[in-house]
Amino acid sequence: MPAPTSPPSSTGGPAGGPTGSRPGGRSARVRVAVHRAVQELVVDETGEGLTIPVVAARAGVHATTVYRRWGSVGELLADVATSRFSGDIVVPDTGSLRGDLERYAFDLAKDLGDPDTLALVRATIGTGGEQGAAACRGERQRQLEAILGREQARGEEPPSLERTTDAVLAPLYYRAVFTDDPLTPDWARGLVAHLLAD
Amino acid sequence: MPAPTSPPSSTGGPAGGPTGSRPGGRSARVRVAVHRAVQELVVDETGEGLTIPVVAARAGVHATTVYRRWGSVGELLADVATSRFSGDIVVPDTGSLRGDLERYAFDLAKDLGDPDTLALVRATIGTGGEQGAAACRGERQRQLEAILGREQARGEEPPSLERTTDAVLAPLYYRAVFTDDPLTPDWARGLVAHLLAD
Repeated sequence: MPAPTSPPSSTGGPAGGPTGSRPGGRSARVRVAVHRAVQELVVDETGEGLTIPVVAARAGVHATTVYRRWGSVGELLADVATSRFSGDIVVPDTGSLRGDLERYAFDLAKDLGDPDTLALVRATIGTGGEQGAAACRGERQRQLEAILGREQARGEEPPSLERTTDAVLAPLYYRAVFTDDPLTPDWARGLVAHLLAD
Repeated sequence: MPAPTSPPSSTGGPAGGPTGSRPGGRSARVRVAVHRAVQELVVDETGEGLTIPVVAARAGVHATTVYRRWGSVGELLADVATSRFSGDIVVPDTGSLRGDLERYAFDLAKDLGDPDTLALVRATIGTGGEQGAAACRGERQRQLEAILGREQARGEEPPSLERTTDAVLAPLYYRAVFTDDPLTPDWARGLVAHLLAD
């Protein structure tokens, strides 16, 4: 199904042909189309492995274009995950460590409870290797660092980043990725309570 | 490379042809060859998506044979994970909950620290969907249940399965799958210590 928001193009030739637009413009459109195709395909859950030809066909571009730009499915998934998981989440600032961590846990539980997000995380872990894993966890870890750093700036002694990762971040990811148990707010709050009772 | 333990076959025709062996025998050999091909391919980490034709070629069988038997890459990976993660680990019985959980955490850390195991877990999560995730966690969860049940039988009140999963199982899987931090024995012991200090 074509995206309804795209402007009408002139008689659309094959994606490889010159279209009169600036290279940067075309390049950006290819990126959007390929990223969207990946996000759609990982949600389909056909149980088939994702391949570049399949992504290219769904995006309406030549497979060679995708190979040239991303190299492999793993690098492509890492790129999609990086752009999906970067910079779209504000670090909570409620004035207390407990409040910040609860807000953080609620936000992450909600995000991982979204089937599109979960499908992308699973697919990226599956094919994106270490680069993909880093893309999935990177921003989340930096947010925790910011929350813990703010508590230190208040003159308190927060738990370490390692301990907070083990006690809050890890159970959220484990439950989302490995089980079909729901990530409820009460359960997420319990994770923070156990950490701060240590 | 042919497996050195295979008995010499008569002039090997294509895998689909009759070879004079019992169907069960051939079927079992196909299963072994396909499982081995999957285990090798997931370790290769080329960043390419795993597909049935690629698995079939590596295993030396027809792709149709693989499609007919497993249906999809996802179901195939779930089957490989089920057979890999079932029944090969003894539940520790050291006489104390702490001892059992520490042994359990060490064993799991060692297992997930093995690159072959980790590659299979990642690939199965990526393509095997809920069935694959269940195959990866199933036996591990049952072992925890057995450990906690034994503590109850001793008249004690162990932490719940949910709490133990969050505090011990989840950090082990998160660190293995999402980071490249080592799963050291000291760190694993610390997870148990935090749980039992609750």
